[in-house]
Amino acid sequence: MLSNKTSDTTITASSSNNTSVNPAIDTATLLIKCKDQAGIVQAVSEFIHRYGGNIITLDQYSTAHEGGQYFMRLEFALSGLSDIIDNFEASFGHTVAKRHNMTWRLHDNAIQTKVGILVSKFDHALLDLLWRHQRGLLDCEITSVVSNHEDLRQAVENFGIPFHYVPVTKDNKAEAEEQIHELMAGNDLLVLARYMQILSSDFVKRWPMQIINIHHSFLPAFVGADPYRQAYDKGVKLIGATAHYVTAELDQGPIIEQDVHRVTHRQGVIELRAIGRDIERNVLARAVNWHVQNRVIVTGNKTVVFN
Amino acid sequence: MLSNKTSDTTITASSSNNTSVNPAIDTATLLIKCKDQAGIVQAVSEFIHRYGGNIITLDQYSTAHEGGQYFMRLEFALSGLSDIIDNFEASFGHTVAKRHNMTWRLHDNAIQTKVGILVSKFDHALLDLLWRHQRGLLDCEITSVVSNHEDLRQAVENFGIPFHYVPVTKDNKAEAEEQIHELMAGNDLLVLARYMQILSSDFVKRWPMQIINIHHSFLPAFVGADPYRQAYDKGVKLIGATAHYVTAELDQGPIIEQDVHRVTHRQGVIELRAIGRDIERNVLARAVNWHVQNRVIVTGNKTVVFN
Amino acid sequence: MLSNKTSDTTITASSSNNTSVNPAIDTATLLIKCKDQAGIVQAVSEFIHRYGGNIITLDQYSTAHEGGQYFMRLEFALSGLSDIIDNFEASFGHTVAKRHNMTWRLHDNAIQTKVGILVSKFDHALLDLLWRHQRGLLDCEITSVVSNHEDLRQAVENFGIPFHYVPVTKDNKAEAEEQIHELMAGNDLLVLARYMQILSSDFVKRWPMQIINIHHSFLPAFVGADPYRQAYDKGVKLIGATAHYVTAELDQGPIIEQDVHRVTHRQGVIELRAIGRDIERNVLARAVNWHVQNRVIVTGNKTVVFN
Amino acid sequence: MLSNKTSDTTITASSSNNTSVNPAIDTATLLIKCKDQAGIVQAVSEFIHRYGGNIITLDQYSTAHEGGQYFMRLEFALSGLSDIIDNFEASFGHTVAKRHNMTWRLHDNAIQTKVGILVSKFDHALLDLLWRHQRGLLDCEITSVVSNHEDLRQAVENFGIPFHYVPVTKDNKAEAEEQIHELMAGNDLLVLARYMQILSSDFVKRWPMQIINIHHSFLPAFVGADPYRQAYDKGVKLIGATAHYVTAELDQGPIIEQDVHRVTHRQGVIELRAIGRDIERNVLARAVNWHVQNRVIVTGNKTVVFN
Repeated sequence: MLSNKTSDTTITASSSNNTSVNPAIDTATLLIKCKDQAGIVQAVSEFIHRYGGNIITLDQYSTAHEGGQYFMRLEFALSGLSDIIDNFEASFGHTVAKRHNMTWRLHDNAIQTKVGILVSKFDHALLDLLWRHQRGLLDCEITSVVSNHEDLRQAVENFGIPFHYVPVTKDNKAEAEEQIHELMAGNDLLVLARYMQILSSDFVKRWPMQIINIHHSFLPAFVGADPYRQAYDKGVKLIGATAHYVTAELDQGPIIEQDVHRVTHRQGVIELRAIGRDIERNVLARAVNWHVQNRVIVTGNKTVVFN
Repeated sequence: MLSNKTSDTTITASSSNNTSVNPAIDTATLLIKCKDQAGIVQAVSEFIHRYGGNIITLDQYSTAHEGGQYFMRLEFALSGLSDIIDNFEASFGHTVAKRHNMTWRLHDNAIQTKVGILVSKFDHALLDLLWRHQRGLLDCEITSVVSNHEDLRQAVENFGIPFHYVPVTKDNKAEAEEQIHELMAGNDLLVLARYMQILSSDFVKRWPMQIINIHHSFLPAFVGADPYRQAYDKGVKLIGATAHYVTAELDQGPIIEQDVHRVTHRQGVIELRAIGRDIERNVLARAVNWHVQNRVIVTGNKTVVFN
Repeated sequence: MLSNKTSDTTITASSSNNTSVNPAIDTATLLIKCKDQAGIVQAVSEFIHRYGGNIITLDQYSTAHEGGQYFMRLEFALSGLSDIIDNFEASFGHTVAKRHNMTWRLHDNAIQTKVGILVSKFDHALLDLLWRHQRGLLDCEITSVVSNHEDLRQAVENFGIPFHYVPVTKDNKAEAEEQIHELMAGNDLLVLARYMQILSSDFVKRWPMQIINIHHSFLPAFVGADPYRQAYDKGVKLIGATAHYVTAELDQGPIIEQDVHRVTHRQGVIELRAIGRDIERNVLARAVNWHVQNRVIVTGNKTVVFN
Repeated sequence: MLSNKTSDTTITASSSNNTSVNPAIDTATLLIKCKDQAGIVQAVSEFIHRYGGNIITLDQYSTAHEGGQYFMRLEFALSGLSDIIDNFEASFGHTVAKRHNMTWRLHDNAIQTKVGILVSKFDHALLDLLWRHQRGLLDCEITSVVSNHEDLRQAVENFGIPFHYVPVTKDNKAEAEEQIHELMAGNDLLVLARYMQILSSDFVKRWPMQIINIHHSFLPAFVGADPYRQAYDKGVKLIGATAHYVTAELDQGPIIEQDVHRVTHRQGVIELRAIGRDIERNVLARAVNWHVQNRVIVTGNKTVVFN
């Protein structure tokens, strides 16, 4: 996220990031948000060119009205990047970024994003992330899994990933969240892979736009508990899932990705949940990958996704 | 609908109803709703067999719990059907239907369903219905179009279909609805093809489960006005449309069909509306066709669709 | 399959088979194929009714032309089924089935289908099946996995399923197939979860319509080797996967299920393969589930799928 | 197309082209193809900036291997564009384009693309294009329709578009094509909206990458005649349609867009054709719109589509 101060996210050459880059060459990703104005592409590309960099991909978007916002995602290759990135970063900030009043972030793609996962008892979203990670399909390092139940310890440890049990009760919620916060320190992103505890707004504020949740409905339909039963009761013909950033307001954070699947009157609540699990795991995996590939920019309560 | 007393809906041999029937042979459709119990298929099929009928398609569904409901849709071929249908109907009512306490309806497929359309200024849903009808893709007779604007008169009359202008104001709403009711008398179904007036509950009660509306959102998300703007403001990644029966409660009637289309941050409200028009016209056409083919049974606030 | 003489396939009450059956009550599935003719539903339902059975689901389909074929799938509940199934089966065969010249099969749903899996080095399709099985989402018993590589032994044994290594070379192909045949004896279905050896027509003949393969393209496009490269070279905008029964003719057996995913010019061959893996595992799981739930009937080189 | 020398394609402000441009401000679209190399974005954006232009959208893509190709599509706003476009064009050609050895084309978006349509008897693809055009959803001028049958004259003339009847027989094919070529002179694009005559390679050569055809199958499956029957005979579970540029080799030109729809064993050939018509008209409309918005670049036998 643009609000993230560290520049530690990576897009590895083995990833599905559609670039033409030679894996041996250093690359970086630059995210920019500013007021729409003439000359941005020119200024940025000129700056990179002066350092000898080559633009690999460039995506931009601006909102349609007067006083609109401008967003850019740019990957460039630059031989010997790690030696000069501090200089590059400082210089860019003092010149181009200052001149155009940009909010911006630069990422050395050689450094992997660190991701921690929170889960309760449902395993489908968690295991799908671990699997994809093991196969090299997730561009990040999964550091650990925290759960308020012991059930999934074995499954997680089979992947060689540390598992921490942090029980949560009515009485210990604040202490439990403090413990989770400490266990997760050092991560760049927390993923709620069907974590069934509501995080306090204090906790959420410490991880601004750094927590992704998978909600098991096509939001904004069916907020709250047991959405598949709500969907069944309503008789909808499609059910869905939504990956979104967690904000203090429950189920209302910026949506990153959604998908749906067709159902009929024949599917009961149990079948809806089974179908839903498949949607959930796919939607969450896509959202996490886009985040760690620095493809998501939050603006207001919405996302710009350069995918 | 089962609550419809007339038996005038048709499934023509030229339709897409997937039957193996010889168009020269008479067919009928039987819809049944009753308490789930043993022996229904046996009783019904035995009755039809005794008349020399041959079952072409049989769909059934029962709800999963004790005291569940049972639903059946059955098409059969019976040579010389029109000569004996009154006898068949009376006899079925006094024997099988009575014994199993059925709500039921029999349709001679040689008689076409009569459909009237209400529209305002948007033409896409209306014209798609007229087109499909002209090409033989809608199994019904479109009798007339009523609009509260003159704009679409020419487009409708080009298809050889009568167009009636019934202006609606704050002051004449009751009179206008009375006029519409009279103009539409004799129809079996009213289709609101983006009719932008809210029908009174008095009007709706006179056409129970006989009015289909196309709502331009994926209900229950975004009820009410301007759903594409709501979808834009929310930043959803899929937009949709919903065809449903009209009940007294706005946007809350039983859902017949829904579909969605993927969008991104790049689409503004205008683009969302354009994409939405394509979804709307397809969803409405499917819902209307299923209704006139007697594929839809309402139960509570949900639908069973045998498609 | 109808050609399968054993009646050992199951649809457990915990499955997603959409039935209203009480899990404590015995159920069976009846598959029928015969010439289209009047009175079939009547005869079958009357027979079941006489035994005190209650029809839970009934699907039928007949081909559209003269001399057409008729297909039926019927589930019924019958208390104490296992005590009288032999009598039921014999009696049905001598009366209804004989009279209508039916090819048919009866399955006591209390007995689980036995499934063996063949795999090479790709793990995605295999592991997805093992996962779904572990979660109770596949209505069968997975008995063992055979591979021509050792790579996936640990992954399989983690699920508590026996793993057999049967290397295949140019010289030992016949012996290897004999060994596989013996290891797999007792199974009702073999699943090729990306098994990269072509089975001999001798082997295939011993498992008629009892081998399901996942082909990594939208057949009949891109038969043969490396379909994702073929798709890339052709520049198609959708890629897909196909689950089909294995016949002596490579990639030409009856198709059970297919699905596709949208791609663009930006995806290289590596990305196409990654996207394809997701399609493959979902398509294969659906096809296997439909088979073990007795939802698939082969007719000619096509399938009727009652799902 | 890049091979098209004229600069007469338009992206109107009322279109779905996702830009933030003020409709009162002049815009142009620049398409570039060259060898991948450092500094392209910098050179192009610097050139536009020097003229006072503001980049609205910029899409680029480069192939993944050494010696790769580079593609760019760029829209920019420039007040008073029409007065200086000749100077701009000449200057760009002599400097940036020459230095980077670019194939390129500049389009003044105030000038509309001229499109002629060829059709036979099927009306669905044609009428959908005329409708969308009438509603302002196609960014082009439709100049005329040519058909080898009289059937659709009235339907076309209802839209106020000239209709020309050019019968084609075995004996007059060359003359007919000559007549079509003359009638279509002045157009930038020909659309075959189910035109059932095979155009000679001589004709095709005169309209290089300027003819779009809708093929009624998911190519490369089911080339040749009656693809829906082929699909039915094969028993595929999805049917589709493909919009592609016409080349001398039948059904083998670069694919612009494809889509599919799920079918089952229940759909006969007639139903497949009906479903197919809906896919065809949507796929063709998308392809035509992308072409006239200059979103398609042909490379080899594939397309890069910036949509």
